[in-house]
Amino acid sequence: MSGQAMPFQLTILGTSSALPTSNRYPTAQVLQVLGRFFLIDCGEGTQTQMRKYKIGFSKINHIFISHLHGDHIFGLIGLISTMELLGRKNDLHLYSHSELQKYLSAQIQFLYPEGITYKIIYHPLNFKKEQKIYEDQKVTVFSFPLVHRIPTCGFRFEEKPALPNLRPDKIDEYQIPIRDRQRIKEGGDFINKEGNLIPHTELTENKHTARSFAFCSDTRYDESYIDSVRGVDLLYHEATFANDNKDLAQITYHSTGENAATVALKAEVGKLIIGHFSARYNDHTPILEDAQSIFRNTESILEGQVFQI
Amino acid sequence: MSGQAMPFQLTILGTSSALPTSNRYPTAQVLQVLGRFFLIDCGEGTQTQMRKYKIGFSKINHIFISHLHGDHIFGLIGLISTMELLGRKNDLHLYSHSELQKYLSAQIQFLYPEGITYKIIYHPLNFKKEQKIYEDQKVTVFSFPLVHRIPTCGFRFEEKPALPNLRPDKIDEYQIPIRDRQRIKEGGDFINKEGNLIPHTELTENKHTARSFAFCSDTRYDESYIDSVRGVDLLYHEATFANDNKDLAQITYHSTGENAATVALKAEVGKLIIGHFSARYNDHTPILEDAQSIFRNTESILEGQVFQI
Repeated sequence: MSGQAMPFQLTILGTSSALPTSNRYPTAQVLQVLGRFFLIDCGEGTQTQMRKYKIGFSKINHIFISHLHGDHIFGLIGLISTMELLGRKNDLHLYSHSELQKYLSAQIQFLYPEGITYKIIYHPLNFKKEQKIYEDQKVTVFSFPLVHRIPTCGFRFEEKPALPNLRPDKIDEYQIPIRDRQRIKEGGDFINKEGNLIPHTELTENKHTARSFAFCSDTRYDESYIDSVRGVDLLYHEATFANDNKDLAQITYHSTGENAATVALKAEVGKLIIGHFSARYNDHTPILEDAQSIFRNTESILEGQVFQI
Repeated sequence: MSGQAMPFQLTILGTSSALPTSNRYPTAQVLQVLGRFFLIDCGEGTQTQMRKYKIGFSKINHIFISHLHGDHIFGLIGLISTMELLGRKNDLHLYSHSELQKYLSAQIQFLYPEGITYKIIYHPLNFKKEQKIYEDQKVTVFSFPLVHRIPTCGFRFEEKPALPNLRPDKIDEYQIPIRDRQRIKEGGDFINKEGNLIPHTELTENKHTARSFAFCSDTRYDESYIDSVRGVDLLYHEATFANDNKDLAQITYHSTGENAATVALKAEVGKLIIGHFSARYNDHTPILEDAQSIFRNTESILEGQVFQI
């Protein structure tokens, strides 16, 4: 969506819901943000998909798990084991329901009674309200509650706004010394040789817009999380069913294509992508058409697809 | 290998060893014997492969697990969950190291605190000696110890010899009444109207040879298990490495192609198939050639391949 040098891109590893199909994988996505690789959910076969789409295992330091249903977590133990086999040393951060620690550490203890080569650091999510769960110099990640049968969170990944660029013509015009330039980029004004104050805004231009992505799976349609995804460039929202099964969507705490598109519309996002399709649909066109009738800029996702933000 | 009506056939679901590759799956095979479907090992992604190769989940009532390394068991929890989602009622029999029960039941308890829709019956294997672990009217299954880093068993599946057929010409010649026929098939003789004894062997013909398959993964080459696979029609034997890594095979308790072929030769099997290839080999030809130099009737396996026995 923009031409920045550092990629902000999403790779789809799995698109299906709980029941396996012969050609689709359960939920997993990798968001590459300015050199960081964030894995979001980890269904069975995620490590195979990572190999296929050339996501290096050692690049993954942070894994975000929306909820503890099998089709979102069964790939974790295989991935953790492969990292151990490869002699990983870096800490691995897991953001999830606090119960995941119990589930996984029992398995790890069983498989590796002498321990593994690296440390897993568990970060429990808050299922009551939005929460900042990760922050570094360039990226912030938030979790926010969704509405599913068990505690479930969505995630929002935000690039921090970069400092503006100094305008080359103004550097020349006012002969701004190198020593002052960083201060001006950070918001300072400049006093020229004549003693006049040249305001920061005249000297800079901001070519860079902070990019954002939000992930909502699994959830029933609910207005409570719309503010948490407001204005993102790219929204992934589950759309398990088409309108023919909208009652089933309600009962099972899942969404239809129309539900996903309504969230996208109300939250005024840039683009919507939908997935987590029920195995009953050989063809997702009906789900996609339902969504597009409400929010035109919608795409359905496929394994291996890459979205540049 | 023969033209019997009831199939005795092996479907390969996964051929790779522990590290995932982009196009191969960890170990899993399905043996179809006279209407029974036996799943042997269950690496991550087995349920996806079953869908792909049209092995119905409800047909699997018996799962045989050679040992508790992740690449042979990580697909179990996904398969068990899918069976639960599909409302399975039949018992599921698991033949494995006794510790598998602890490992799996903790996960099931975590995921389904109210229990699942069917019963899992665990059958612990004996790692000291060969043991009959399954028997019904038509099939017998044996486990036998292999030589790996942790307790590991191979499996041998034997069709029971069918009763011989009565020769139609002899039925006519001696006018054998229907009431006597089953008894003669089971080994009895016949006394004709003249009071002469016509021996069983003159009256019957045996068109049917009992078929057999043996599975050896993972193991270091060792003569101790050769008797357990002697004379089988089809032998699967792991061949993780080519000769270039035979020292590594020793150290890691795995086999080379040459090791697998030596077992096949000494055990006088009909045909050898090899797999469990290390991810370091993009091309298995060297492993296969090493094996064929010792035992010509060797094939390397591919996902989706079917072997008729």
